[in-house]
Amino acid sequence: MVESLVTPAQNDFSAAERSAVYRALRERRDVRAGYLPQPIDDATLYRLLAAAHHAPSVGFMQPWRFIVVRDEGLRRAVHGIFERANSDALARYQGERRQLYSRLKLEGLLEAPQHLCVLCDEESERGHSLGRNTMPETSIYSVVCAIQNLWLAARTEGIGVGWVSILDPRAIKNLLRIPAGTQLVAYLCIGYVRAFSDVPDLERNGWEQRAELTPLVRADYFDQPYAAHHDMR
Amino acid sequence: MVESLVTPAQNDFSAAERSAVYRALRERRDVRAGYLPQPIDDATLYRLLAAAHHAPSVGFMQPWRFIVVRDEGLRRAVHGIFERANSDALARYQGERRQLYSRLKLEGLLEAPQHLCVLCDEESERGHSLGRNTMPETSIYSVVCAIQNLWLAARTEGIGVGWVSILDPRAIKNLLRIPAGTQLVAYLCIGYVRAFSDVPDLERNGWEQRAELTPLVRADYFDQPYAAHHDMR
Repeated sequence: MVESLVTPAQNDFSAAERSAVYRALRERRDVRAGYLPQPIDDATLYRLLAAAHHAPSVGFMQPWRFIVVRDEGLRRAVHGIFERANSDALARYQGERRQLYSRLKLEGLLEAPQHLCVLCDEESERGHSLGRNTMPETSIYSVVCAIQNLWLAARTEGIGVGWVSILDPRAIKNLLRIPAGTQLVAYLCIGYVRAFSDVPDLERNGWEQRAELTPLVRADYFDQPYAAHHDMR
Repeated sequence: MVESLVTPAQNDFSAAERSAVYRALRERRDVRAGYLPQPIDDATLYRLLAAAHHAPSVGFMQPWRFIVVRDEGLRRAVHGIFERANSDALARYQGERRQLYSRLKLEGLLEAPQHLCVLCDEESERGHSLGRNTMPETSIYSVVCAIQNLWLAARTEGIGVGWVSILDPRAIKNLLRIPAGTQLVAYLCIGYVRAFSDVPDLERNGWEQRAELTPLVRADYFDQPYAAHHDMR
């Protein structure tokens, strides 16, 4: 089958192309504020969904399903589901951490003119179970890869994405009439934004700092630090 | 906090940069053959890991951990773990599908001069549980986003990645001395490759076809097809 392989591969991305990809990877942000009212047109939306659709998937299963939520009543209902979960979450913190939590803006559900609900059809026969006998969770991981593809493509279009996990997934499934065998993987705000922050919101707001990379890398065994003396934050 | 936002955002990627990102998204492949013996040098490896490290993470938890496996004995042992799982998997298929499965090359564990074991430290306090009270699985999803970042960065460096899920994760955890609270998310072959296939291996080999995107997209409710008349494969 070698004849159907594209060659040469090793240096086929130019330095400029490589830089553009690294730029998108570094400048992508989880956006929870500053959404503009202008909706995403269908052609642009389909470019983003096609980017997601080109993600890797276990056994080429392609288990991702998408609901584009534009209806204002539904968006308000989702915001209500967020607010209930967020009150519960706030109650778990104490003292200064609680004050800090209460000041965070954690979603843009009312501002973003559309949401994207991303699902995994775990009952799909596509892929014939290849790779899922040992690790069945990889069907959901495929969907997460698709989300990250879409997120990066969106960044290059001036479109922000914010992943809202402070929600009761069962309430969302009821609201959007999602069947039992289809799992809710992510609920995203998505839309054109005024700006992208230079650092993650949770870093700027003092919730958490970026970790150093070096201690997270090990050599051969989990308990052996990687010997290289690079320090990349 | 507006003063710390980068502006203007909406059109800050050039058409060339945008194309480069879409190219990486479309030409990324799951590579299981054609690895070259040349190892990845530390500087390049760290660029890839830094790309992973810039993934989104719930609460800015950054729960990803990486083991770079170069030891030949370990790589052979992992290959043995694959072979056992693959025999079990083969036994589940019948007839033509079984013949087809037996001809697939599903890993490059012996050819690739390094592997990357990607883990999730679910016990990390970093992120202070933000976003995980309702959806605790998002810590693992953050790690999957990191993997996809690395996969795309690798493509631009002429480096192939192959995700091997036909493995007993407990056997890998024992082999690499991974502690109980740290979950194995992915086991990857990674290395320079001779070429990238123009279509996914499982498509070229007749295992599965690329789905049409349009039927996978719904509007407002799961049971309402999206009305747009785009058909993007």
